[in-house]
Amino acid sequence: MFTTTILVRFADLDAAGIAYYPRLVNFLHEAFEDFFRGHVGRPYPDVFREGLGCPTVKLEMDFLSPVHYGDHVEVGVTVEHIGRTSVRIRYEGFVDGRPVFRARNTVVMVEMKTFRSTPVPDWLRQKLEAAMEGAQGLYRPSP
Amino acid sequence: MFTTTILVRFADLDAAGIAYYPRLVNFLHEAFEDFFRGHVGRPYPDVFREGLGCPTVKLEMDFLSPVHYGDHVEVGVTVEHIGRTSVRIRYEGFVDGRPVFRARNTVVMVEMKTFRSTPVPDWLRQKLEAAMEGAQGLYRPSP
Amino acid sequence: MFTTTILVRFADLDAAGIAYYPRLVNFLHEAFEDFFRGHVGRPYPDVFREGLGCPTVKLEMDFLSPVHYGDHVEVGVTVEHIGRTSVRIRYEGFVDGRPVFRARNTVVMVEMKTFRSTPVPDWLRQKLEAAMEGAQGLYRPSP
Amino acid sequence: MFTTTILVRFADLDAAGIAYYPRLVNFLHEAFEDFFRGHVGRPYPDVFREGLGCPTVKLEMDFLSPVHYGDHVEVGVTVEHIGRTSVRIRYEGFVDGRPVFRARNTVVMVEMKTFRSTPVPDWLRQKLEAAMEGAQGLYRPSP
Repeated sequence: MFTTTILVRFADLDAAGIAYYPRLVNFLHEAFEDFFRGHVGRPYPDVFREGLGCPTVKLEMDFLSPVHYGDHVEVGVTVEHIGRTSVRIRYEGFVDGRPVFRARNTVVMVEMKTFRSTPVPDWLRQKLEAAMEGAQGLYRPSP
Repeated sequence: MFTTTILVRFADLDAAGIAYYPRLVNFLHEAFEDFFRGHVGRPYPDVFREGLGCPTVKLEMDFLSPVHYGDHVEVGVTVEHIGRTSVRIRYEGFVDGRPVFRARNTVVMVEMKTFRSTPVPDWLRQKLEAAMEGAQGLYRPSP
Repeated sequence: MFTTTILVRFADLDAAGIAYYPRLVNFLHEAFEDFFRGHVGRPYPDVFREGLGCPTVKLEMDFLSPVHYGDHVEVGVTVEHIGRTSVRIRYEGFVDGRPVFRARNTVVMVEMKTFRSTPVPDWLRQKLEAAMEGAQGLYRPSP
Repeated sequence: MFTTTILVRFADLDAAGIAYYPRLVNFLHEAFEDFFRGHVGRPYPDVFREGLGCPTVKLEMDFLSPVHYGDHVEVGVTVEHIGRTSVRIRYEGFVDGRPVFRARNTVVMVEMKTFRSTPVPDWLRQKLEAAMEGAQGLYRPSP
C-alpha cells in the first residue's frame, strides 16, 4: 500500500487544540498528490497543468481519534474502484499506529478546459490498478 | 427548515476557479454556527467558551455541482437523529435553487475540559428536536 | 470611510483560541471584496471574471489585540495612494471600538490572461479617489 | 542561515492558479516551526504545549514573484533583533533561486495561561543569537 506522512502544522489546529476536521479532509488531497508523485510517477501539479482535473464528487470520512499538533499522520492510499471516468480511493490515517481517520473519496476525471468528465487515461489506469487491494506489485505492505 | 446563506469568498476557491471541497466542508460548520445563533438561540461561540464542544466524528458529503466565486450558497439544516451524546445533521446546499452539495454530519457532545463525551444537554435537545424533519414549529418552510 | 463587518468563524481560530494571523490577513481580502460590492458598485467576483486581477505585492500589518471567536470585526477601508498600475489601501480592524489590527496593502492591477500589470481602469480610479482620506462624498464618517 | 523547503500544495492556490498571499504568510509560520525543529532543537509543538506562545504582532512582507503549484519554496530564516520579550525574524523565499517573497515578522513571547508577555527564555535566546546575521556557527551559508 502506498503511504505518505503529513506533519500537523499550526494552521491545521482549531480552538480545541486538535486538527480541525476540514483540514484533515485536505490531508486526503495532500496524500493524493503524494500518491501521484510517489506511486503514479507523475507529479499531480504537472498533470493538472496539462489539463486533467480530479474534483471530488463524494466523500465519506470517519474521524476516529483526535489529531494533535506536531503529529506525523501516516496516510495509506488504496484504490478501491476504477470506473470509466471516476476513481474511488480509500485513505487511512494513523498516528503512532493508532487509527485517526478513514475515508473514501470518489473523484471524477475532468478536462479542465471544458470541465466535462473524461475517461481515466490509460497511463493512469494502469498505475491505479497496481494500487488496488490484492494487486501484485511493489506497494503491498509486508506481512 | 433552518437556512442560512454563505457567500463564496476568494479564499474558498481553488486553482480550477471553483470552491475547494474542504472549504465546502467548512461551510457545514459555518451553517452549524448560524443554526445555533438563529435557531437554538445561543451563539455557538458562547456555548463553546462555556465548555461544550461538538467535534465531527462522521461525515458523508456529495458534491453535486461546482460552486463559483461570489455565489450565495443557501444551506438548509435539518436534524436527522439525536442520540444520547451524538447528533446527526443533514445539510443541503443550493445556489439559485440548484443543489450543489448535500451532507450528513455526526457530531459528539464533548466536555472541552476532559474531551470526554457528555449527554446532549436538555436545553439543546429541545431545540434540536424542533429542527427535525416533520417537527412542528417555527422553522418549517411554508408550502 | 467604507466599513464592513466580518464575523470570526471557528475556522479562523488557532490553538490559542484566537484568530490565527494569516486568517486576519485574509480578512483584508474579504474587506476588499466588500469594498467593491459596497463602494465601487461592482462585485469583485465579476471584475475578476472579466479578467482583472489585483494581486498583493506588499503588506504591512500590525496585530494590536487578540481577536476572539464570535467577534464582529469592523474593518475600515481607506485608499491611501493610487499609482498608474497600483493601489495602496489602509485597513483598520476594530472589535467593540477597540483597535485589533491596522494594515497597508498594495495591490497591482493585472490582466489575468497575461498576468501583466495594467493601468488602473478609469471607472475604478474614480471610485478609489472617492475613498481617499479627505475625499468629498458619501463614505466619510460623521464627526 | 537556516533554510527549510515548503512544497506548494493545492490548498495554497487561488483562482489565479498561484499561491494565495495569506497562504504564503502561513509559510512563515511553517518555516518558524521548522526553525525550532532544525535549529533551536526543540519542536515548537512541544514548546507550545509547555505554555510558551509566540503570537505575531507585526508583519512586513513583499511578494516579489508568483508562486506556483508544485513549487518547492526554499525559505531562509534569519533572526534580526532580540528584545526583552520580542523577536524579529526575517524570512526570504526562493523558488529555483528566484526570490518570491521576503518578510519581517515580529513575535512576542507570551505565557499561554495568562496571555501576558514574558521574557525570551535563556535557552531560546542563545539559539536565536546563533541565528543572527554575522553570528558564528553551524548555520552560515557556505561562500
